[in-house]
Amino acid sequence: MDELKATPRTTLRRLPARGSYDRALIYAILDEALLCHVAFAEEGGQPYALPVNYARVGEHIAIHGAAGSRLLRALADGVPACVSVTLLDGLVLARSAFHHSMNYRSVVLLGRFKAVTDREEKRALLTAIVEHILRGRAADARPPTAAELDATLVVVLPIVEASAKIRAGPPVDDPEDMSIPCWAGVVPMALVAGSPIPDPALSQGIALPESISRYHRPGR
Amino acid sequence: MDELKATPRTTLRRLPARGSYDRALIYAILDEALLCHVAFAEEGGQPYALPVNYARVGEHIAIHGAAGSRLLRALADGVPACVSVTLLDGLVLARSAFHHSMNYRSVVLLGRFKAVTDREEKRALLTAIVEHILRGRAADARPPTAAELDATLVVVLPIVEASAKIRAGPPVDDPEDMSIPCWAGVVPMALVAGSPIPDPALSQGIALPESISRYHRPGR
Repeated sequence: MDELKATPRTTLRRLPARGSYDRALIYAILDEALLCHVAFAEEGGQPYALPVNYARVGEHIAIHGAAGSRLLRALADGVPACVSVTLLDGLVLARSAFHHSMNYRSVVLLGRFKAVTDREEKRALLTAIVEHILRGRAADARPPTAAELDATLVVVLPIVEASAKIRAGPPVDDPEDMSIPCWAGVVPMALVAGSPIPDPALSQGIALPESISRYHRPGR
Repeated sequence: MDELKATPRTTLRRLPARGSYDRALIYAILDEALLCHVAFAEEGGQPYALPVNYARVGEHIAIHGAAGSRLLRALADGVPACVSVTLLDGLVLARSAFHHSMNYRSVVLLGRFKAVTDREEKRALLTAIVEHILRGRAADARPPTAAELDATLVVVLPIVEASAKIRAGPPVDDPEDMSIPCWAGVVPMALVAGSPIPDPALSQGIALPESISRYHRPGR
């Protein structure tokens, strides 16, 4: 896949070696994470960054929410937005306090969302959001009704102005610190799924579907 | 502990039953999470939300970074900011696509950061940030030098205008969907620590300290 064009707003100035504009890498991070933080600013400059779930659908990010939600209404109005997605991969324990860090893979996306008005397009994007939560789930669950579609705002942002930033590997200490007798290394971190907990109101005799029993998070 | 005063900016309008202004709850979420997303807006309203590590120190959030970092300089200038911290606790799988959701605990904090200029205060806050990564670590690692302190900007935000939002428990389906023969429940999610990976350049004979061998993430 291609490289996105770095813009003055997405050019990484701090530690540019950790940055990337590679579309395949950006997509892989977006597809692995479950939540993003979406930011918008009020007039006067007060920003809000709120966690929401989402899906990448082709070259777009789709977000949904209640039609009355302030966030969704602002995004549908096309205010400048930022989508930030971060996977935490490890605690980086250096010999010096100064070089402590985290291993992570992150994406920052800039642009303006657009509301999706076409009902079939909306339905497809909502299906993608359910599938992003758990692949195979959309086939098992009851699809949205017309009333549910109307009560939901769906907005999409093209993945055009975006960058990824990655830190991986061991700590990097200053040469003069390498002989300090202090353990140094990485504690890997990963989001993992536990055993499914059935709804206490679940009817008798409903088996766990394979989409759930086989579910696992991408390991590291 | 007390309740924070809800302001028009932190009053939760969507699903207010999930909201809380309880200081102890807000602190517990801030203390468990490892990363926050900090948002600020440029003139013209373009927001940026970037992942950083942090520590809660008493009634403040402290963030650090290179003195040349655009984010840190903007925060030190006192621009309006938003700090968002989110713990993902589970995938909520309902009988209807519409009621799919996530279990989470999140905090949103608003306000303006201030730069810390006093060197001893800066040292204490940097120690807290290392301790937030891994408790006990500051005693093992080489403390910052004067030059490292000078190369680092530390900014603090008082925890005054903040709210928590929590979703927990099973899916909530509409009464007419309860008989749909579709498995419903929650897949718990948690960030877990793997086995420590020593730095390939680690000198022979340096044992793993107890702060690391005993480390575990708060379970759910």
